[in-house]
Amino acid sequence: MKKLNIGDYNDILNEVLNDISPTEVEKKELKVFSDKIIAKIKDISKKPVVDIIQVGSTARDANLKDDHDIDIFLRFERETDRDTLKESGLKIGKEVIDYFNGKSWVEYAEHPYVSGEIEKFNLDIVPCYGIENCEKIISAVDRTPLHNEFLIMSYKNKNLSDDIRLLKKFLKGLGIYGSDLKTAGFSGYLCELLILKYGGFLTLISDVKTWKPTKSIVLNEIYEMYDLKKDHVFSKFDDPLVVYDPVDLNRNVAAALNEENLCKFIFYSKMFLKNPSKDFFYGFDKKITDFLNRRERGYLLTLEIKRPENIVEDVIYPQMEKIQKSINKLVKEHDFEYLRYQNFADENTCYLSWEFLVNELPSVKLRIGPPVYSEPGVMNFITHNEHYFVKGCNVCAYKTRKYKNIQILFEDIVNGKFRKIITYPKYVCPENAEIRLGTFVERT
Amino acid sequence: MKKLNIGDYNDILNEVLNDISPTEVEKKELKVFSDKIIAKIKDISKKPVVDIIQVGSTARDANLKDDHDIDIFLRFERETDRDTLKESGLKIGKEVIDYFNGKSWVEYAEHPYVSGEIEKFNLDIVPCYGIENCEKIISAVDRTPLHNEFLIMSYKNKNLSDDIRLLKKFLKGLGIYGSDLKTAGFSGYLCELLILKYGGFLTLISDVKTWKPTKSIVLNEIYEMYDLKKDHVFSKFDDPLVVYDPVDLNRNVAAALNEENLCKFIFYSKMFLKNPSKDFFYGFDKKITDFLNRRERGYLLTLEIKRPENIVEDVIYPQMEKIQKSINKLVKEHDFEYLRYQNFADENTCYLSWEFLVNELPSVKLRIGPPVYSEPGVMNFITHNEHYFVKGCNVCAYKTRKYKNIQILFEDIVNGKFRKIITYPKYVCPENAEIRLGTFVERT
Repeated sequence: MKKLNIGDYNDILNEVLNDISPTEVEKKELKVFSDKIIAKIKDISKKPVVDIIQVGSTARDANLKDDHDIDIFLRFERETDRDTLKESGLKIGKEVIDYFNGKSWVEYAEHPYVSGEIEKFNLDIVPCYGIENCEKIISAVDRTPLHNEFLIMSYKNKNLSDDIRLLKKFLKGLGIYGSDLKTAGFSGYLCELLILKYGGFLTLISDVKTWKPTKSIVLNEIYEMYDLKKDHVFSKFDDPLVVYDPVDLNRNVAAALNEENLCKFIFYSKMFLKNPSKDFFYGFDKKITDFLNRRERGYLLTLEIKRPENIVEDVIYPQMEKIQKSINKLVKEHDFEYLRYQNFADENTCYLSWEFLVNELPSVKLRIGPPVYSEPGVMNFITHNEHYFVKGCNVCAYKTRKYKNIQILFEDIVNGKFRKIITYPKYVCPENAEIRLGTFVERT
Repeated sequence: MKKLNIGDYNDILNEVLNDISPTEVEKKELKVFSDKIIAKIKDISKKPVVDIIQVGSTARDANLKDDHDIDIFLRFERETDRDTLKESGLKIGKEVIDYFNGKSWVEYAEHPYVSGEIEKFNLDIVPCYGIENCEKIISAVDRTPLHNEFLIMSYKNKNLSDDIRLLKKFLKGLGIYGSDLKTAGFSGYLCELLILKYGGFLTLISDVKTWKPTKSIVLNEIYEMYDLKKDHVFSKFDDPLVVYDPVDLNRNVAAALNEENLCKFIFYSKMFLKNPSKDFFYGFDKKITDFLNRRERGYLLTLEIKRPENIVEDVIYPQMEKIQKSINKLVKEHDFEYLRYQNFADENTCYLSWEFLVNELPSVKLRIGPPVYSEPGVMNFITHNEHYFVKGCNVCAYKTRKYKNIQILFEDIVNGKFRKIITYPKYVCPENAEIRLGTFVERT
């Protein structure tokens, strides 16, 4: 294996940076524009609004090229009642976007806020409560300005922008950037904390390649901020990666990340360091899927289920996963083996896909019962199994298989025969689904 | 469940006894004939022959009807050299059978002995050394007269003949009577010891139904014979059933019995006590096999291998078992699953049979590698597996299956491709065997 020099990596990383860094012109435009917006908001705001803060990656030069998202938070006095916060937030948001001749609409999260477009910029204007570090949040988004303050403060005299962008792009390439429930990956904030901790992209992934779940990370800044001893005992989390939130030590910033995605990060950090290539940064997960699919297939089957209207991804994906796992259990109980399964939803349809090893089994199956000396197990077993015999130490029986063919099993699922056995989540019901044979729908 | 009375069992057992007990006429004929033989042998024997003993079940009224085997042992002085014992034994044997106008021949065991037929009787005339209880044997058969003495002595004032016959017939019915390596069941001597221990057939099986391997049995007679304390610690044996030999405490009389056959005894004792029937005593194992085979079959395959000449059952059966287990391992490594396997040999051919669940698999298979954080495992894995990916915590890969079809795998076995992988026992070589599809040869 050839020994790699830092230069080998730097050439590649610089090429990637060239693609993903906003230009100086772009940065300036963004700065000028957001300053104008903030000035206008300040102009029209009054108590109980106490502060106007630009947050998000564009506020910290941590955004990728062509990311024109401007997030502005209106901090309200903590005594403000919810309705006032809501109404006042919406009013200010609409007024400022109207003022710049933009298009605005209301988005609904825990509380509604105004979203809009002005020229090429996308705006979110979000009201929240002003709280202190480690204080209990009042509304769901109250920590965001604190995150912003912490990062801005920590970046002093450091230039980490390029490394943050590289990490985000690397994770995007692997399909694990995003803390939504579909992706179950890394949030932007988590990326920034990791770069802050390790000082750069290469130093980070050189450490990541030695990680093993569960991995736990405490930033040095935390000890200083809270004046903690080095042997301080932090809260425990049952997550594969734990990164303590500097603004709330009882929160794991990496809570949304699942084990497989952490392991992908570990594995591909290793791979990149061994064979550095731009490929990792550009749709690498898609390339893997395409490469893996260039092979003879097993028996493919997809359930197409109508997706109810207005059910967001963060609700539909966990529910698809839940019912598919429940069907997997049923399938295994009937001795069918799958190579893999996958779920995906587009606007109208949920797709649950399987690749089975075989689709037909002989009608006979072997049931292994209790040891001959185990009572009342043995007597129960022979009461329920006619064709019994002794094999080794156990009483066993040949049974007639109920489902010789996987398709028939799925037809009964769709016909509701397993209503009492399969867990039906609220919005993904398998009854009346379409069975598509020979089809496997990959996630996009 | 109806409560059963002892009478329900006795009616059945009496019917069976009616079938299997020698008649008084038969017993008398046997006695008269064997006395004549022994008198003649005494007449022509001289030192170093010191004793002439009739042994075996016919000597103890423990034989089944139509069993006309007469076993006579010639005990030699222990100082006799092997050649003298051999020659003298053969000479006496031949002379006595000639005298009664019988047909005689030489059988070869550890040392040769004379076997013959006179009228309807079968004779074995076997030379052995006179040894004491627990003494080291000089030739393989020296314990037999001691077994006989022990049993005769123990039977005093007891009439256990019927119960011994019932037990033997019951075990025959289950196909587990015989301590040869094909049967791996109960010897006649073991049957007699068990009846002696438990006092009768019904008391025995009422206890057997509560047994659990490993079961260990010490006869009360042993404590008396050797003047042992109740807490005496006996030799340990790694066998499912241990019955200490009263004439040699370092020997397990049940050493030949395998676990499955012990479990059959336990299970069918339970079954008989629950639903007593004559059926158990008459070819019951064959009935079970026939009943079990009345079902849809998996994919049947038999290897027919030429049986070398003059290789006895006790050699060929363990070797068939050995190679079949070795092939089973190979088959499993290639992801084929069998419902059952069986071996059987007739005069000319060894039959190794399998019933497989499926005969075809798709050409793709999933190989699960080490966790992503395990080194050097991960790097080795990806070096040998092109289509790798991360699944859960592991690196996995899709592989092209070498054998999609079980028949092709067996063709390569027969062609000698697995010469270095399969264990070839001395007398059962799979190369050039015939593959019979759709055939499963049951043991008879």
